[in-house]
Amino acid sequence: MRSSVRIIVDAMGGDNAPEAVVKGALSVHGQGGVEIILAGREEEILAAAGGSVPAGVQVVDAREVIEICDDPATAFKRKKDSSVTVGLTMLKNGEGDAFVSAGSTGALLSAATLIVKRVRGIRRAALCPVIPTATGRAVLIDCGANAECTAEYLTQFAYLGSFYARRVLGVKRPRVGLLNIGAEPSKGDALRHETYPILQAAGERGELNFIGNIEAKEAILGGCDVIVSDGFAGNIMLKSIEGVGSFLGREVKGMFLRSGLSKMCALLMKGSLRTFKEKIDPDTIGGTAFIGISKPVIKAHGSSGERAIAQAVRQAAAVARSGIIADIEANVSRMHPSAEQL
Amino acid sequence: MRSSVRIIVDAMGGDNAPEAVVKGALSVHGQGGVEIILAGREEEILAAAGGSVPAGVQVVDAREVIEICDDPATAFKRKKDSSVTVGLTMLKNGEGDAFVSAGSTGALLSAATLIVKRVRGIRRAALCPVIPTATGRAVLIDCGANAECTAEYLTQFAYLGSFYARRVLGVKRPRVGLLNIGAEPSKGDALRHETYPILQAAGERGELNFIGNIEAKEAILGGCDVIVSDGFAGNIMLKSIEGVGSFLGREVKGMFLRSGLSKMCALLMKGSLRTFKEKIDPDTIGGTAFIGISKPVIKAHGSSGERAIAQAVRQAAAVARSGIIADIEANVSRMHPSAEQL
Repeated sequence: MRSSVRIIVDAMGGDNAPEAVVKGALSVHGQGGVEIILAGREEEILAAAGGSVPAGVQVVDAREVIEICDDPATAFKRKKDSSVTVGLTMLKNGEGDAFVSAGSTGALLSAATLIVKRVRGIRRAALCPVIPTATGRAVLIDCGANAECTAEYLTQFAYLGSFYARRVLGVKRPRVGLLNIGAEPSKGDALRHETYPILQAAGERGELNFIGNIEAKEAILGGCDVIVSDGFAGNIMLKSIEGVGSFLGREVKGMFLRSGLSKMCALLMKGSLRTFKEKIDPDTIGGTAFIGISKPVIKAHGSSGERAIAQAVRQAAAVARSGIIADIEANVSRMHPSAEQL
Repeated sequence: MRSSVRIIVDAMGGDNAPEAVVKGALSVHGQGGVEIILAGREEEILAAAGGSVPAGVQVVDAREVIEICDDPATAFKRKKDSSVTVGLTMLKNGEGDAFVSAGSTGALLSAATLIVKRVRGIRRAALCPVIPTATGRAVLIDCGANAECTAEYLTQFAYLGSFYARRVLGVKRPRVGLLNIGAEPSKGDALRHETYPILQAAGERGELNFIGNIEAKEAILGGCDVIVSDGFAGNIMLKSIEGVGSFLGREVKGMFLRSGLSKMCALLMKGSLRTFKEKIDPDTIGGTAFIGISKPVIKAHGSSGERAIAQAVRQAAAVARSGIIADIEANVSRMHPSAEQL
């Protein structure tokens, strides 16, 4: 059996907290060495767990809850006894190996950056979801933490995403593409023009497997393993994928519900339909890692149900065991625009 | 019958030119008053048409062809006898009412801007495709012509898109949304922060039906009629939609091809499947209008087949008849950031 890994879960964050969060987290407890630590209002956690938690599960009482209406930048400071502040402080102090929350992204990012801190030398932490593609999956970095980026940020994202794809997804030589509006190096805006040669130089030094610019369509069809973007365009891409997935998912469902005959077809094709549904279901993917923070922090979807929380906890365990943070620490000196001039 | 409208078609542009372009254009000739003018190598056009063209179709000989490898900014000048240069010059001179091409977007945009010119006071022409949404369709402006934008450009796009939705799509009070990474006015980057209050003021003056920021997912689910974006993020959105549509389209197809039973289901559900396919088929939508140019110019998809060309010609006729350019000319003085300070 693998060595144990302690996952601190924010029991109070998300639309379905604490019930679904507690149940989802507990469903993974004990599997493959995962140990669950639940942070939040103790009596609510115990009620959600059906009166008591299994042996080995730790419940850490935290009386406050960060709400969507709280200012994300300051919520964790004003609410020092919130599940997020308490849980991240435990992570910082080594009383757990990773933190999972389905609460406010902004508040979690601020709190993680200021409590747990970024890896030294990393300019910005990035949201790094894994998206389904026609041929497998890809890492999209950043997708919303940094609306405005510099070439240095994008360069760091390229390395961080590449480490994530290698360490967590197991891709040997991750193909890194710069998200752009055309494939030629001349395409795009000033930020892309500035970033392209830096990534190209990193490719020539053998530090990245840089394949050049990539258009959103080609990325979704499987053209690369790491999609490097500023947080604005990356978020537009992620939300477009979610939107079309939701829209077409409903269309397919409607198609099978139209008549008695089509309903019979739905029964006949049950297995295929389940596979299709899983492909477009965000819950299958799990959470979004905050990469660049010095310890693993995973944001689960706000609407996460039990299954999504369980998946995010497994993902947190995988990140904690992957060695990605050691990779980042060891390579941070290479991730600067000036490096190619050495 | 409606009054006649003359559509000049670039017979040499696109992956399937001249055959599919000529056939597609001729299939619309005479319908609802549409008259076709074909620009390109006469002998190739006649061969594609089966030896001769129907009565009333004009063929304008142009010996050169703009290729993908030509520099988009200068191709139309160096190739003065190209189908694009000849056709757009006719449009400028009033010898036709709209121009359709499936050739290089960049070359067409440069040529249209420099030969036909923008409406006076319009800073940048924008690519304005119509995208399918869960509840109907929406205009996305810009989606690639302008990778870098100012608040003034975005303000103009908001008006241009609103006129397009009203005049061409027939939406009474088009809901205009600013594409952003969150709904709150504080979300996004400096460009969005600067643009938001200008559009808000235009909304308060009753000139736009501004509904605030919109996320990509909500836009795809039908949250607005006009999606205002810089060309970079707009292109990422458009190509993401195309990518997921293509990916999930294949998945659905594969699902129905898996076994004898599922193939039988495909037969039983033939009608629904056709409707689904049409929803995700870019050919159903037709072309992308270049809005801001002083006469109608429509870019058809490079891979357009006959049906897509026919659709783009119909769309060009609709734009030519819509009165949108008169709308733009009459309102251009309102479209400036300073207007809200008057």
